[in-house]
Amino acid sequence: MSLLLIAKNRDFSSLEKALLVKDPNLDVEIWPRVENKERVHFAVCWNHPEKVLGNYPNLRAVSSLGAGVNHLLDDESLSDDIPICRLITDALQDQMAEYVLNSVVNYRLHIWDYYENKKKGVWEQKSTIPIKYSPVGIMGMGEMGTNVATLLAQQGYAVSGWSRSKKDIEGVTSYAGNNELNDFLSETKILVNLLPLTDETEGILDLDLFKKLKQPGYLINVGRGDHLVEEDLIYAFDMDYLEGACLDVFEEEPLPNNHSFWNRKQIMVTPHIAAITPAREAAKVLVENYKRAMSGMDLLYEVDRERGY
Amino acid sequence: MSLLLIAKNRDFSSLEKALLVKDPNLDVEIWPRVENKERVHFAVCWNHPEKVLGNYPNLRAVSSLGAGVNHLLDDESLSDDIPICRLITDALQDQMAEYVLNSVVNYRLHIWDYYENKKKGVWEQKSTIPIKYSPVGIMGMGEMGTNVATLLAQQGYAVSGWSRSKKDIEGVTSYAGNNELNDFLSETKILVNLLPLTDETEGILDLDLFKKLKQPGYLINVGRGDHLVEEDLIYAFDMDYLEGACLDVFEEEPLPNNHSFWNRKQIMVTPHIAAITPAREAAKVLVENYKRAMSGMDLLYEVDRERGY
Repeated sequence: MSLLLIAKNRDFSSLEKALLVKDPNLDVEIWPRVENKERVHFAVCWNHPEKVLGNYPNLRAVSSLGAGVNHLLDDESLSDDIPICRLITDALQDQMAEYVLNSVVNYRLHIWDYYENKKKGVWEQKSTIPIKYSPVGIMGMGEMGTNVATLLAQQGYAVSGWSRSKKDIEGVTSYAGNNELNDFLSETKILVNLLPLTDETEGILDLDLFKKLKQPGYLINVGRGDHLVEEDLIYAFDMDYLEGACLDVFEEEPLPNNHSFWNRKQIMVTPHIAAITPAREAAKVLVENYKRAMSGMDLLYEVDRERGY
Repeated sequence: MSLLLIAKNRDFSSLEKALLVKDPNLDVEIWPRVENKERVHFAVCWNHPEKVLGNYPNLRAVSSLGAGVNHLLDDESLSDDIPICRLITDALQDQMAEYVLNSVVNYRLHIWDYYENKKKGVWEQKSTIPIKYSPVGIMGMGEMGTNVATLLAQQGYAVSGWSRSKKDIEGVTSYAGNNELNDFLSETKILVNLLPLTDETEGILDLDLFKKLKQPGYLINVGRGDHLVEEDLIYAFDMDYLEGACLDVFEEEPLPNNHSFWNRKQIMVTPHIAAITPAREAAKVLVENYKRAMSGMDLLYEVDRERGY
């Protein structure tokens, strides 16, 4: 029985090492050099080549290498009876919360203006935007969203969360379902997207939505690139629906060198670094789920294929 | 009896308004237009012109408009028997803690590199520096330093504090006095300066100190510009004692347009905005201390002239 790591252009050496530290008896293979396809019982994938999973007839479970699983749900070569799980770790959640808080504070402190002024040798004090004028709304209140919301509420922000079902989180106002989306948006100045990518949420960040925020709003996208209608973002700046955005995810990654987002002064771009799982933490969860799959137990963070996350 | 606001080139209109909201019977005057010098019983100063305080024979107390008081201690026209107090508010402390945490995270996430890459359209992921490799040392453990230390410790940082006397703060290792300075520095990667400016602390941030940090260190100066030997900072980069610095205070403010700090890629400059007291919060403390001074009571945040803070 082997555990197979599949991704395009990724150096798996530290993850392989961490897996073997966690369980020295593990048989780890790294795609595309697979000695015996029939021995692969567990696959770990990130942006894997489409339909590659069909090559492994004895798969018992598949894990994403991150919180997103749309690349696995979309793969038609993966039989419906094979369970899919996400990779969630405490470190990942803490990193995400830290990234979002940092983006919010950089916006409130006008850090990008100061950076530009520094290049020009200009000393210009700007009023920090008070926390009370910076209510934050989080779309997607899974493990990640809940963790982000909790940190921001602790720091004194008015925080709302929007999700499929109502949540009871201290200091966080909960909105649920499409009926309450407009109310949620009207309470939100800084919008944080942490939704899972599904048919229903693809393209949800569009001009119509930006228009409903407290004007002008600010967008932090740490969900998936396909949640955002990219041309609507530019249009929202022109219409003053939004005053800025901090983006960590994009339709196409790496973001192409000639993409218009790079040059927009309102946009801060980071190269999908908001939450990177440390190898040792990832190994812990992957080995646990490998063992569970081999012994027929329920997986941690298993995905509901109907819901899509 | 009047309360006099003194500063060079500062718009006091919102503070004046906030003071009158807090106490409509207050007689507020704004320097240099003072109707009756003998009626001035309480002065509030920030970078006031030297010796101006000698013009007011009936002063009963003087307050700084911020946490720093060296501008008042240095004024020889202020009689030694007039109490001096600092202006400390919860908002000020929270802003300072937020600024320092934000600076630490921007450093760990390589935010300035990403900002530069954005301008070039370059997608390059860098490994976020783990919190466990980022022990923070705080010089100066007064109200501000304690608040900063507490927030960072809550966020999972290993935090040390250095002060005149030992402090007992949860999650924070306390070092005290000159004997323990080297031990403190050897435990510190990210150094935060929040010391009061005194004869003993002026120029304390020098090459010899930077050399003792975990190499290379990172400096966050939110104390006073005169704590830092500016040429030593540049030298410390060249010697790889430091890899970067985030500076909010400077020997000369505004930082002159031709100052070499502006062009140094290792330095982030912000224009003394880490902690700006909101007018309403300032008014609350100032009116309280005005009343205490008028009735001969002890002042809040009164300065010990011997210690210098």
